[in-house]
Amino acid sequence: MASNTFGNLFRITTFGESHGIAIGGVMDGFPAGIAIDLDFLQSEMNRRRPGQSDLVTPRNEPDAVEILSGVFEGKSTGTPIGFIIRNKDQRSHDYTDLKEVYRPGHADFTYDSKFGFRDYRGGGRSSARETAARVVAGAFAKMALRTLGIAINAYVSGVKDVHVPLPYTQLDLALTEKSPVRCPHAPTAERMIKLIEQVRDEKDSVGGLITCVVLGVLPGVGEPVFDKLHAVLAHAMMSINAVKSYEQGDGLSATLRKGSENNDSKETNRDGGIQGGISNGKDIWFKVGFKPVSTIGKPQQTTNSAGEEVSLEAKGRHDPCVLPRAVPIVESMAAIALFDQILLQRTNRW
Amino acid sequence: MASNTFGNLFRITTFGESHGIAIGGVMDGFPAGIAIDLDFLQSEMNRRRPGQSDLVTPRNEPDAVEILSGVFEGKSTGTPIGFIIRNKDQRSHDYTDLKEVYRPGHADFTYDSKFGFRDYRGGGRSSARETAARVVAGAFAKMALRTLGIAINAYVSGVKDVHVPLPYTQLDLALTEKSPVRCPHAPTAERMIKLIEQVRDEKDSVGGLITCVVLGVLPGVGEPVFDKLHAVLAHAMMSINAVKSYEQGDGLSATLRKGSENNDSKETNRDGGIQGGISNGKDIWFKVGFKPVSTIGKPQQTTNSAGEEVSLEAKGRHDPCVLPRAVPIVESMAAIALFDQILLQRTNRW
Amino acid sequence: MASNTFGNLFRITTFGESHGIAIGGVMDGFPAGIAIDLDFLQSEMNRRRPGQSDLVTPRNEPDAVEILSGVFEGKSTGTPIGFIIRNKDQRSHDYTDLKEVYRPGHADFTYDSKFGFRDYRGGGRSSARETAARVVAGAFAKMALRTLGIAINAYVSGVKDVHVPLPYTQLDLALTEKSPVRCPHAPTAERMIKLIEQVRDEKDSVGGLITCVVLGVLPGVGEPVFDKLHAVLAHAMMSINAVKSYEQGDGLSATLRKGSENNDSKETNRDGGIQGGISNGKDIWFKVGFKPVSTIGKPQQTTNSAGEEVSLEAKGRHDPCVLPRAVPIVESMAAIALFDQILLQRTNRW
Amino acid sequence: MASNTFGNLFRITTFGESHGIAIGGVMDGFPAGIAIDLDFLQSEMNRRRPGQSDLVTPRNEPDAVEILSGVFEGKSTGTPIGFIIRNKDQRSHDYTDLKEVYRPGHADFTYDSKFGFRDYRGGGRSSARETAARVVAGAFAKMALRTLGIAINAYVSGVKDVHVPLPYTQLDLALTEKSPVRCPHAPTAERMIKLIEQVRDEKDSVGGLITCVVLGVLPGVGEPVFDKLHAVLAHAMMSINAVKSYEQGDGLSATLRKGSENNDSKETNRDGGIQGGISNGKDIWFKVGFKPVSTIGKPQQTTNSAGEEVSLEAKGRHDPCVLPRAVPIVESMAAIALFDQILLQRTNRW
Repeated sequence: MASNTFGNLFRITTFGESHGIAIGGVMDGFPAGIAIDLDFLQSEMNRRRPGQSDLVTPRNEPDAVEILSGVFEGKSTGTPIGFIIRNKDQRSHDYTDLKEVYRPGHADFTYDSKFGFRDYRGGGRSSARETAARVVAGAFAKMALRTLGIAINAYVSGVKDVHVPLPYTQLDLALTEKSPVRCPHAPTAERMIKLIEQVRDEKDSVGGLITCVVLGVLPGVGEPVFDKLHAVLAHAMMSINAVKSYEQGDGLSATLRKGSENNDSKETNRDGGIQGGISNGKDIWFKVGFKPVSTIGKPQQTTNSAGEEVSLEAKGRHDPCVLPRAVPIVESMAAIALFDQILLQRTNRW
Repeated sequence: MASNTFGNLFRITTFGESHGIAIGGVMDGFPAGIAIDLDFLQSEMNRRRPGQSDLVTPRNEPDAVEILSGVFEGKSTGTPIGFIIRNKDQRSHDYTDLKEVYRPGHADFTYDSKFGFRDYRGGGRSSARETAARVVAGAFAKMALRTLGIAINAYVSGVKDVHVPLPYTQLDLALTEKSPVRCPHAPTAERMIKLIEQVRDEKDSVGGLITCVVLGVLPGVGEPVFDKLHAVLAHAMMSINAVKSYEQGDGLSATLRKGSENNDSKETNRDGGIQGGISNGKDIWFKVGFKPVSTIGKPQQTTNSAGEEVSLEAKGRHDPCVLPRAVPIVESMAAIALFDQILLQRTNRW
Repeated sequence: MASNTFGNLFRITTFGESHGIAIGGVMDGFPAGIAIDLDFLQSEMNRRRPGQSDLVTPRNEPDAVEILSGVFEGKSTGTPIGFIIRNKDQRSHDYTDLKEVYRPGHADFTYDSKFGFRDYRGGGRSSARETAARVVAGAFAKMALRTLGIAINAYVSGVKDVHVPLPYTQLDLALTEKSPVRCPHAPTAERMIKLIEQVRDEKDSVGGLITCVVLGVLPGVGEPVFDKLHAVLAHAMMSINAVKSYEQGDGLSATLRKGSENNDSKETNRDGGIQGGISNGKDIWFKVGFKPVSTIGKPQQTTNSAGEEVSLEAKGRHDPCVLPRAVPIVESMAAIALFDQILLQRTNRW
Repeated sequence: MASNTFGNLFRITTFGESHGIAIGGVMDGFPAGIAIDLDFLQSEMNRRRPGQSDLVTPRNEPDAVEILSGVFEGKSTGTPIGFIIRNKDQRSHDYTDLKEVYRPGHADFTYDSKFGFRDYRGGGRSSARETAARVVAGAFAKMALRTLGIAINAYVSGVKDVHVPLPYTQLDLALTEKSPVRCPHAPTAERMIKLIEQVRDEKDSVGGLITCVVLGVLPGVGEPVFDKLHAVLAHAMMSINAVKSYEQGDGLSATLRKGSENNDSKETNRDGGIQGGISNGKDIWFKVGFKPVSTIGKPQQTTNSAGEEVSLEAKGRHDPCVLPRAVPIVESMAAIALFDQILLQRTNRW
């Protein structure tokens, strides 16, 4: 039911296709009385927008957000916050040749299977352009969370086989935004950039890992049983385009230890700040894995809607590596999910 | 909001504490006219129940399910199906010494943080005993899914560092139930059993991996954007006790390839049967990582509710490795989630 | 989706058929730390139970509630509260002749239309026996609301054309429970009783009005737009069997006045304590209309499932007038809805 | 939770304040493949828009709807349909003197109580301007319903004490749109118009009744127990500004009959097409009561936010009688609710 809505009390509903008139959304349940910082909102949009460096797609979208309701005299009113972002640089002609072709790794065939037809222009609804609306909602959630002293810091911890060799606790996360690849570990960042440039020149793509760290969440947040906090976070992260894995805290590494080695003491945080689905007051941290983006310039074999084999060379503008732009998306989905859970926790005790 | 409820159209709500009178649940939205096979239900319960082999906890629960409503003359009526499972072998005295102690890796401290106090007997609501109710709902979902030719097969693909060396496509999944460790690859199963026996004798525990394969889902299932099919499956899996990671299809391995290497052709299925959040008609497959169970007999240092350091040796009955018993739980959550999504897909086209 | 569930944060899900093994339900979202008074619970059940006077059906059900979870050491734990009520006096043989007959005014035909078949015994799921589960949830909600000083008082204000001639503000609502017909105005109560006895002897039935008054709700409760407080209350009331009308405050009388006559001043409360869908701090009051119960002993013409005309004389046990027993049901649904809305209001301001 | 959202499978979320930049909404769950008729949409908007006759407010809003997404090549795509309606004729200066005044019968005080402050311009979110977004959604729902042969016809059946003397079955509902007061019974319409003109000249207001008739719904629609079809319709109707009563079918009249007189035969339809909460294939019909609109030009005593008594003469533009403009709103909410329930019914049988 919640196809285009995320959240329980704080709910974001998004709409819009890549090459339609506009994308946008509605935030409902955002409490009244929170100061709204539109400069911060735009700065968040700029972190996600295309064209911000030569590592990402050159599509040129200013991503200016028009807030239509729910904010009055600089504060949220408690009523729904509607917003739109006009699509400026659509260039539909780039895509018309894809009308009958099912691009490998993409949602073209599956949208047709589900709905009977699709808006094929630029991926339509399946385009990651939709995530711009998530960053709007994430920025609002962050405005609320920072009044509680909660900060969310994601960074690129791996590009293909180039990984940051240190845990987040040994990094200065303030350096993330100084790096075009959003990796706070300078020597690794340099290697990542070289790899992405090389892959871009090959008309290929790479994926990798984003690590997200949330500081300042009090114990008690998260609903046990079906909506364990990490289950909700995993849901949020897996809803981002190209994400294929989620690891809570130590994740897969935990499967390789014995209980006596893995159980956390006061000093360790292998569980990533959550136990029994509820925050325990330690940092919440998790890792998200992205597959390499499916759209590549290299020729590929695929099928068309008639079932015939065809060769495809993508001509649209695309990212050789989405991870730098995905960092604010990961943060936004974490902020949206956490803010919702924090509101829920207001209702659990009498 | 959905703390103790999972699903949209087919919804399971569970209740009950480990050492209370009974656990149980309500299934709502189960369509009318499906033949109900109570023998199959009990056989599923038996796959999860404690005491089934000497690799698992000796707690003795017959886990007899009493169906209270919603079934009439052998078929579902479309009205809610209420059910209970009496707790028989509670032995509350085993646990009273844990009233003030926060067990490492457990939800004791976090439940207290959230709710102000807790039913401490045997883990109360945070006990994996709750998953018995999920297996009931999973069995009903399977009864519906098999009328569509859909089969769900999970198996233990790793215990600590002992992994099945072959992909699922090269295994005979019919062998899973013949193995006490629910691993269909006999030589690996043997090594797993030895490892678990050794760990049990050390009063320690181990985790591992379960791979789940779903056969027969038509293209078009899954809601794009926030409820991508793998996002819903990840949510479902991460809601199971001790799960710490989720990988869709190739998962983490996909992060190590280039796009040109990773994009699926007709012959490959690295994406695990889902593209853009929608099933593509291939097998749906994913991997779930379990941390070693936190309750161990070995002495551990921990804190009590007064904040003092105390030493703890768990005396209750527990599993050295939960994975064999978790196989039907993984299947059940997959069945519940898929059945719900298949019902939703009935409403997406006019 | 919410067929058998009511509420957002405090949610009650019910299950069970009139002549099945048991009815019951699950309350989720009931906050931790509320003292649970099981004697009060049973006293509420007794107000609804059959056989309490010779004005109501003689079916003999003790309606003993078994609380299975969510309560520990006398307080709610914040985890779901499961409960069942065994059906004792089912007498299925009373009803087997109704298998093929569609009783006039009943849900027999419509259940068959919806689900393809039905549990025909005693009305199955459509029986008002389901409301016993609502009274359980209502009693819990009342336990919470009274800690806030909120009291809910419903009474029978009309039976057929016999109406209480005074507004509730001129009645002593403490007298309601002293009257077998639950009307606090003694001379009217006497006339109502005579009317019901006469109708019972004619093997016929009568409906009427229940007025419900809620004292002590602070301003600010209720969600504007789609979930206006009176919209939610109307939903709650219209979900009770046989209810056919809802009037908020002055209701239909308000349609007969001019704005200058109808707008409330400090002294008046024609709007019934709600403006713009939000409580204004005055008493919340509304009126609910019940049609005469459809089951009557008098012979009636109707059709069977083959479409043939048949004559029907109901032989089961039924109420000539459900209103006295419906008073606690109205109160319960009001309590459930209000408690839920009060929890929601905790999340509307930062 | 659903404050600004209505529906389960077909969900409409609205946003916007009376004097903000725009109002709008998102429709989610609208199935793919339905032909979209934008001329019909605009004709529905025109039925609700202000300034359409001299019986209604002269505020001049073209109410041009901009569809932003979810429609491609003339058909719905199954993805969310976002839309906005710019506010053109806001005249904020009309309202600034109301910043500190609580208008009688309005939501000013209650919004302040709920949210701490409010957008006071023209009623802000509590203005009936929000209902324009409902008419958009209603028009889309009607486009779907008419493919099933379902027609929804509402009309003004009473203005103050001037009532249509005939049941709907004896009226020609095609005449409704020919009357400026949307009453299909010409002699009554004439009397209504005279009454409204007189009341307008007195700077006062009147309310009344709207009857709504739905033709063509098959048996089986509506979810029994908590979401009975008439409970959902009552919820939908009571969510419309100024609505104070709902009567299903014969409604209050049914409370005055005996069961033997009230039970429907083949020829009668006192229950209004719904039994046990499920449609029975007859016409669905119900009556909605509107209080006189609270905003009047006549001087009234009220209080301000400092608690002082003040005199108030409303200077904004308002309707002496909202009923003619409310007819398409009633139809829209009925269409939205029914379409949602019809989608749900697709999932109730296997």
